[in-house]
Amino acid sequence: DAAWQVVDGHHLRRAYRLPDFASGLALVNRIGALAEAEDHHPDLLLAWGRVEVTLWTHSVGGLSMNDFILAAHIDRLAP
Amino acid sequence: DAAWQVVDGHHLRRAYRLPDFASGLALVNRIGALAEAEDHHPDLLLAWGRVEVTLWTHSVGGLSMNDFILAAHIDRLAP
Repeated sequence: DAAWQVVDGHHLRRAYRLPDFASGLALVNRIGALAEAEDHHPDLLLAWGRVEVTLWTHSVGGLSMNDFILAAHIDRLAP
Repeated sequence: DAAWQVVDGHHLRRAYRLPDFASGLALVNRIGALAEAEDHHPDLLLAWGRVEVTLWTHSVGGLSMNDFILAAHIDRLAP
């Protein structure tokens, strides 16, 4: 969970640990609002106590500068 | 997307297609509220236009009657 990782040279992934399901759902909503505002939508996996974010730029089929910017913004939303 | 599938004899999975990201996020919130009410929490993968639900019973390490009941309830929440 320590940091974002580049996976397969294709996307960024980070997992956040949360104390319960509701905290994870709240984080998904915060990230969702940011994604809509920036029109850049990560994949979000919500499990009990955990949110996993996967991020890439569909139009380039991989990573772009926007992904790293959004990753930094998402970090600010996590507890 | 047609129906729930039993995967590896271990969990139930179904994907729902949605017209956009916001509709998917709204479905995640409806399922999340149900999960909290029933104290039974699926894994929820939210992607643009898609929500994938994975469901099993942690205490038995596989499927129980509760999973099939929750699956039926989740179907009522989908658009």
